[in-house]
Amino acid sequence: MSDPRLASLTAAVPGLHLKTAPDDLAFYGRDWTRRWTPAPLAIALPDSVAQVKAVMAWAHANGVAVVPSGGRTGLSGGAVAANGELVLSLERMNKVIEFDRVDRLMTVQAGMALEALHNVAAEHGLIYPVDFAARGSCTIGGNIATNAGGIRVIRYGNTREWIAGLKVVTVSGELLELNRGLVKNSSGYDLRQLMIASEGTLGVIVEATVKLTDPPPPTNVMLLALPSFEVLMEVFAAFRERLQLEAFEFFTDLALKHTTAHGALNPFAEVYPYYVVTEYAAGDEAAEAAAMAAFEHCAGQGWVLDGVISTSVEQAQQIWRLREGITEAVARYTPYKNDVAVRISRMPAFLARCQSLIGGAYPHFEVVWFGHIGDGNLHINVLKPDGLGQDEFVAQCEQVTKLLAQVLAEFDGSISAEHGIGLVKKPYLSSTRSPVEIALMQSVKRALDPQGLLNPGKLFD
Amino acid sequence: MSDPRLASLTAAVPGLHLKTAPDDLAFYGRDWTRRWTPAPLAIALPDSVAQVKAVMAWAHANGVAVVPSGGRTGLSGGAVAANGELVLSLERMNKVIEFDRVDRLMTVQAGMALEALHNVAAEHGLIYPVDFAARGSCTIGGNIATNAGGIRVIRYGNTREWIAGLKVVTVSGELLELNRGLVKNSSGYDLRQLMIASEGTLGVIVEATVKLTDPPPPTNVMLLALPSFEVLMEVFAAFRERLQLEAFEFFTDLALKHTTAHGALNPFAEVYPYYVVTEYAAGDEAAEAAAMAAFEHCAGQGWVLDGVISTSVEQAQQIWRLREGITEAVARYTPYKNDVAVRISRMPAFLARCQSLIGGAYPHFEVVWFGHIGDGNLHINVLKPDGLGQDEFVAQCEQVTKLLAQVLAEFDGSISAEHGIGLVKKPYLSSTRSPVEIALMQSVKRALDPQGLLNPGKLFD
Repeated sequence: MSDPRLASLTAAVPGLHLKTAPDDLAFYGRDWTRRWTPAPLAIALPDSVAQVKAVMAWAHANGVAVVPSGGRTGLSGGAVAANGELVLSLERMNKVIEFDRVDRLMTVQAGMALEALHNVAAEHGLIYPVDFAARGSCTIGGNIATNAGGIRVIRYGNTREWIAGLKVVTVSGELLELNRGLVKNSSGYDLRQLMIASEGTLGVIVEATVKLTDPPPPTNVMLLALPSFEVLMEVFAAFRERLQLEAFEFFTDLALKHTTAHGALNPFAEVYPYYVVTEYAAGDEAAEAAAMAAFEHCAGQGWVLDGVISTSVEQAQQIWRLREGITEAVARYTPYKNDVAVRISRMPAFLARCQSLIGGAYPHFEVVWFGHIGDGNLHINVLKPDGLGQDEFVAQCEQVTKLLAQVLAEFDGSISAEHGIGLVKKPYLSSTRSPVEIALMQSVKRALDPQGLLNPGKLFD
Repeated sequence: MSDPRLASLTAAVPGLHLKTAPDDLAFYGRDWTRRWTPAPLAIALPDSVAQVKAVMAWAHANGVAVVPSGGRTGLSGGAVAANGELVLSLERMNKVIEFDRVDRLMTVQAGMALEALHNVAAEHGLIYPVDFAARGSCTIGGNIATNAGGIRVIRYGNTREWIAGLKVVTVSGELLELNRGLVKNSSGYDLRQLMIASEGTLGVIVEATVKLTDPPPPTNVMLLALPSFEVLMEVFAAFRERLQLEAFEFFTDLALKHTTAHGALNPFAEVYPYYVVTEYAAGDEAAEAAAMAAFEHCAGQGWVLDGVISTSVEQAQQIWRLREGITEAVARYTPYKNDVAVRISRMPAFLARCQSLIGGAYPHFEVVWFGHIGDGNLHINVLKPDGLGQDEFVAQCEQVTKLLAQVLAEFDGSISAEHGIGLVKKPYLSSTRSPVEIALMQSVKRALDPQGLLNPGKLFD
């Protein structure tokens, strides 16, 4: 603790936990991206809103930059601290504050893991429906800061739809209590909405009041084998028309090879180029019949070559593992990730353009495709060959992202569907947001954080 | 057209329709509030986004204040032009731009009436579910500017949930194309959300891309008679637990007296103090049985004294008229309106406090209570006695609103659930938003509209 500012900080915030060991600086200074060398000033681990306020008041008075930090499972570098910033980790603030059965609301501290939130909701017979594979490590605060999406968006929407209130500490250490769980509150600008997806650049989210809902009806999970990309949206339309879809996810044979190599079970004897996992309400005979009708319609058209339906919870989990295990299975190849979106109706043309672009651009790289296709969201994971250096690999991929960004601009799409902009997507923000929009965002940033102390360098310069 | 600025405007925007006749100035210069004397500079009626951009560029260059104007059905003075502002009416921009069946999105010009939007959606076999009594006159642009709620919020949420994209013209005449219909787009601050509920103070909404959904299953409408305020939330809980509620609205005997005097039919022979209209999914025998079980449970507890279920569309409409006709039926008494909200769980205690406060404060006035009780939203309409002057009446009511605002602050409630702040609620904004929040809102306003030209004086000074 040689930096004299830290003595000033501990004096200003009595009892504040601080970590300064090199291992801690490295651990808390980065997220799941691995492109930047962590170099934070120190790690502050407050245990209360009062401590967060005091830390921010101190940082504000002393001109110290702060990186708010959740589970650091982000894929865009939004939680990286590589320039002497103070990391403000919410990990000790991970408790339930209040459960309200009548309002169906739960207020939790921002450092609570998503899975822990799921578990508490389940104890009350309810669900918080936003879900994705990082659930065990990511925090609700981080989910809100990126408006996280995931595998249930098709049914339940993004994180934004589930936030009934936020407590946020401003850059100067003042507490905002935004919306406080009200269903209706037309009383001026909804600053809660402004904080959602702001990636820690406008305030520090310290508490969230989330909406809960009834568990879904019983569901079945179906795995489908498809002959081509071109029929994907036809299959989606056929299923959406007939069923209440809870999820509709696609991936390629290459993705399946990686997840099965990682322990997932492939129920098919044959190899197919494309797969879909879909989960749908199946509580009664009508729904079962509708599912069969959808399958048979697609099979009759030649859009689906094979399929299995889960007959048990275990089998449903096995099927899901084929899709959910992808990120973990390819992690050792330090993949370069694109997370893009277009309107659903534009997906077929966009997929064709992407296939052509990516196929031509990466002749020597393995490319794993998967995505939340019912939301218009496509994940493209380029795997680094073992012999290639990380910097050279990223440089080659960035060249392709530049081209992809041009295609996205043409398709009115988004360079970041659900990962946020952070550092990784910053060079491509203009593919998605116009110069006027970016200028307005910057003016909002200056209005709320005139000195630029909150997560500097993220989103835009 | 004596003001020399108007010659400059028509030169700057060729073909722009302008109205300057005294009747037009009076008609377009006010909304459904009647407290301010309209005094606009003129009424501009652009017919295209290009004209709106040109008008705003001119206003910006010449320092002319602008009041964006939809159907002017607002109840908070948000569309009043009483200080020489240019009224920018969107009424000529009322067309459908695009319907997209795959995305289930429709893009319309902001001046389209809500009912017209309903009708176009219905032609495509879909619904836009936000709905309220002013549907024939209000516009989608105005709905967005106040995040309008209404009678289906309990099932479908507020306007905010249904906006997939917005085109907004900035104060300097530049066009923002916000979100463009994407389901997922985590690419920085969601300026679309900032524009929703900003009451024309941050930009001019010129187009909206709204989400559509499937029509609800067949519904029934039930009218219930209740003995007291105290049991209202018990009845709500009993029905919500058993049924998929599409609406749950309450009103008092006095409200019913006014709507029946205005032509609605009362199906009960006896007089009861309180009533509920609820609409619920009733497509099958299970739902019918659940509705009967809810009714019988409440009747058994003494919470419900009588009830009727609609047996035809006509009867359902007649029941609805008892609730929806209230605003029109009391309009001739130039009511003073409160539109307040608390969390649903706090409603019983809040209702008790309100009854005590309002009963004591208005011994000589008729007070009509109704509300969207399942959203925690209560409407209090104080009727002006015929002999009392309007100014004196409002002054007396404002004294009570001051006290009500204190109660709301204590209950963490909102002074405006769905009407917006405008001019009417401005003195009470601090009951709902903290000084820090108001200061942040003001800084956002300055960032987007440094000269304060967009709807000046609304929301805050």
